Amino acid sequence: MIRVPSPSYSVTIRAAIENRVGMFSRIANAISQVGGDMGAIDIVRVERGTIIRDITVNARDEQHEKRIVNSIKNIDGVKILRVMDRTFSAHEGGKIEIHNKVHIRDREDLSKVYTPGVARVCRDIQEHKEHAYRYTIKGNSVAVVTDGTAVLGLGDIGPEAAIPVMEGKAMIFKEFAGIDAFPVCLNTKNPEEIIKTVRYISPVFGGINLEDISAPRCFDIETRLRKDLDIPVIHDDQHGTAVVVLAALINVSRVLKRDIKKFKVVVVGAGAAGSATARIILAYGAKDITMCDKYGIVYESRRQGMDPYLKALAKMTNPRKLKGSISEAMKGADVFIGVSAPNIITPGDIRRMSREPIVFALANPDPEIAPEDALPLVRILATGRSDYPNQINNMLGFPGIFRGLLDARASGVNEEVKLAAANAIAYTIKDDDLHEDYIIPSGFDRKVVTNVAHAVAEAARKTGIARR
Amino acid sequence: MIRVPSPSYSVTIRAAIENRVGMFSRIANAISQVGGDMGAIDIVRVERGTIIRDITVNARDEQHEKRIVNSIKNIDGVKILRVMDRTFSAHEGGKIEIHNKVHIRDREDLSKVYTPGVARVCRDIQEHKEHAYRYTIKGNSVAVVTDGTAVLGLGDIGPEAAIPVMEGKAMIFKEFAGIDAFPVCLNTKNPEEIIKTVRYISPVFGGINLEDISAPRCFDIETRLRKDLDIPVIHDDQHGTAVVVLAALINVSRVLKRDIKKFKVVVVGAGAAGSATARIILAYGAKDITMCDKYGIVYESRRQGMDPYLKALAKMTNPRKLKGSISEAMKGADVFIGVSAPNIITPGDIRRMSREPIVFALANPDPEIAPEDALPLVRILATGRSDYPNQINNMLGFPGIFRGLLDARASGVNEEVKLAAANAIAYTIKDDDLHEDYIIPSGFDRKVVTNVAHAVAEAARKTGIARR
Repeated sequence: MIRVPSPSYSVTIRAAIENRVGMFSRIANAISQVGGDMGAIDIVRVERGTIIRDITVNARDEQHEKRIVNSIKNIDGVKILRVMDRTFSAHEGGKIEIHNKVHIRDREDLSKVYTPGVARVCRDIQEHKEHAYRYTIKGNSVAVVTDGTAVLGLGDIGPEAAIPVMEGKAMIFKEFAGIDAFPVCLNTKNPEEIIKTVRYISPVFGGINLEDISAPRCFDIETRLRKDLDIPVIHDDQHGTAVVVLAALINVSRVLKRDIKKFKVVVVGAGAAGSATARIILAYGAKDITMCDKYGIVYESRRQGMDPYLKALAKMTNPRKLKGSISEAMKGADVFIGVSAPNIITPGDIRRMSREPIVFALANPDPEIAPEDALPLVRILATGRSDYPNQINNMLGFPGIFRGLLDARASGVNEEVKLAAANAIAYTIKDDDLHEDYIIPSGFDRKVVTNVAHAVAEAARKTGIARR
Repeated sequence: MIRVPSPSYSVTIRAAIENRVGMFSRIANAISQVGGDMGAIDIVRVERGTIIRDITVNARDEQHEKRIVNSIKNIDGVKILRVMDRTFSAHEGGKIEIHNKVHIRDREDLSKVYTPGVARVCRDIQEHKEHAYRYTIKGNSVAVVTDGTAVLGLGDIGPEAAIPVMEGKAMIFKEFAGIDAFPVCLNTKNPEEIIKTVRYISPVFGGINLEDISAPRCFDIETRLRKDLDIPVIHDDQHGTAVVVLAALINVSRVLKRDIKKFKVVVVGAGAAGSATARIILAYGAKDITMCDKYGIVYESRRQGMDPYLKALAKMTNPRKLKGSISEAMKGADVFIGVSAPNIITPGDIRRMSREPIVFALANPDPEIAPEDALPLVRILATGRSDYPNQINNMLGFPGIFRGLLDARASGVNEEVKLAAANAIAYTIKDDDLHEDYIIPSGFDRKVVTNVAHAVAEAARKTGIARR
């Protein structure tokens, strides 16, 4: 895959540049020769015979950053003062903070928000536990809980290294849905301990977003917590992904005027995302789903890599009793959904699919097949990347889902809520706007959260899990 | 004790008032006749022949609020539209929220604070765990942890009802020390489970403030957590109180030009606050401390109400081997420190003290002796109340202590840190300003946090627990 310079590898280079003709174009030349993508240029100050400039350049990766810096360093008359990586700068000191809604300017303020006034509010909640939703952050707060075992594509990196992702998630919750989310990064991988810890800390929260917990432990943790708690518990890697994939599939069926229920679907990847995706498509009404994992097609009597969760899935899927490799599963399939690993299918596999191949290659950052290779062969392509059309992005799901659940003071979450969310995402795109390259709204389309929240709260009320 | 109208019982009454002469003075009269303290009066709008006004009145308690409202309701030509309790209003929706330090306006922003850019920061922390202090909220965050068993004077009210207090504490952390504190209200009272839970959630935090956990469980929980964690763990009800009491005592010795080490001290209340107070005064150098609890003087061979913690205290205190009631302990004492219950000592007890009785009656809201009764008899009086001079307030301690520990990236906390904090609080008052009625700075004196933070960070560095 060809990587292009990206803002996530962006450096700001502060350089003292001799003030003579042609210097700047030399720098611009040097950067462009090594493939850097020059962005903003600021003058910091002018000294005797020298201009101090901040030059921002997007690079392909960290090595490329270094080559760009070196290319400038070697120019006669240029002295590099410092190099700031803009991604690291954005993380300096953390990305979220606590903000007081009311000021404490004097004793009178304090006596209302703290002692002695606060005691009356405490007593009120002691008598009416549900008033915690009204008089505390519980009504608008979500815990983003991880044990750091399956963070992004990085694997088991531990709770400390997972914090920046959970803070980022909290930022998205706030920016797009006004939700106060706090990172809970657990120093244990033991499912029993995780379940207990979440149960113990739950009083302050109106919802629990489980995040980046590795399969199959995530299944049991979620199921048990849902049983134990009277607030919604959602493992986003499962249901967030599943909801957004279903939304895209709904729009595929709208564009192609075909019925999802008749699609032959191959899902590759039987972890958190894959199994939830298969289940939601089944719940929507599809009949023919074939799951694959690294051992190939999943079938009931298979021996390799089976666990109780996979066995349950095998029972629900594979109606044609297929066995064999992924390529085997692809024969005649209408839809391929990959939530697995880079480069595991080939152009040949796509050619084996039905007349109008629909390919969702969602492994991130490197999809199951290079988009350049897939594009000429498919009717519709979706990826997890922002640099191709049809980005399947969890951002479309979780902010609106939790917004709706909090608005309804939901005691849990159910299948109807998830289906309502998928429909709301899909139908944010009007019929006239739908298009092979626009089957899913942008993560920055603010209408999505509003639509999803509304549909979710309504579904919660209809199914009796709303408490408001 | 005579209660005076207070802003913590403040109502805003919206009333439609007939627009004729003398109406307003009738209302003011009615409020004053039932003892209400009228504050702000706003005009909401004027309708035909009617003025809609918001009248804010401070009351003594909830019953008094109702009497005030009724006194207005009964006036001919006045119709009450609604009554807002200003303390409850201040709690509506919770008092703190999450705030994003960086905006997510577009995909470029997102790619820095979330995927794909965030992955580089994660990998960096994975390689250098201590970088979590730099690139996440850890460097500035404190968990305010409670199990809701000893909240204010309300006792065991449970984790939900405790949230408003923990949010209030978080507000003080932010307002006075810029610290991001988050309430962790635990749905378990089991010490083992509390210890495990705090250990598991600790990666995100730079410090742990234990709060309102009942004695004696709080002692073991704190001790064990300090051993387990590489961040400071402070049970504020113990050490926060102890530090501020010692600060006041240091200033008593400055005012009276007497040596603390020679004081005969009676500490009544052997719970969290009392035992920590006795210990810090001993650590400062005092020799003669007599502890009392509800069974009277604490001595080694006593049978009633002894536990291992109290036994340890008994060994360290009571050098004159006293036995008997609190009154017995008061004979000839220089200092009385009460952190116990209302009205447990009498004017007679104070008369039995030495020539210059120093009385810290800190039970809240009702002290060990009514200030009106104590004042004529003592040389110096301190209480926990804001309506008398010399308020002993934990606010003087914890914000600066944690600020200093976070600034130093401290791996723990020790006696030197606490003594440094007490001295810093005390010496915030200059020699010339010291006075019997000004032995402790105001909780709103911003210099206190600065001084304490500086002294604490320095003490942490000197004693080898600083990591920066």
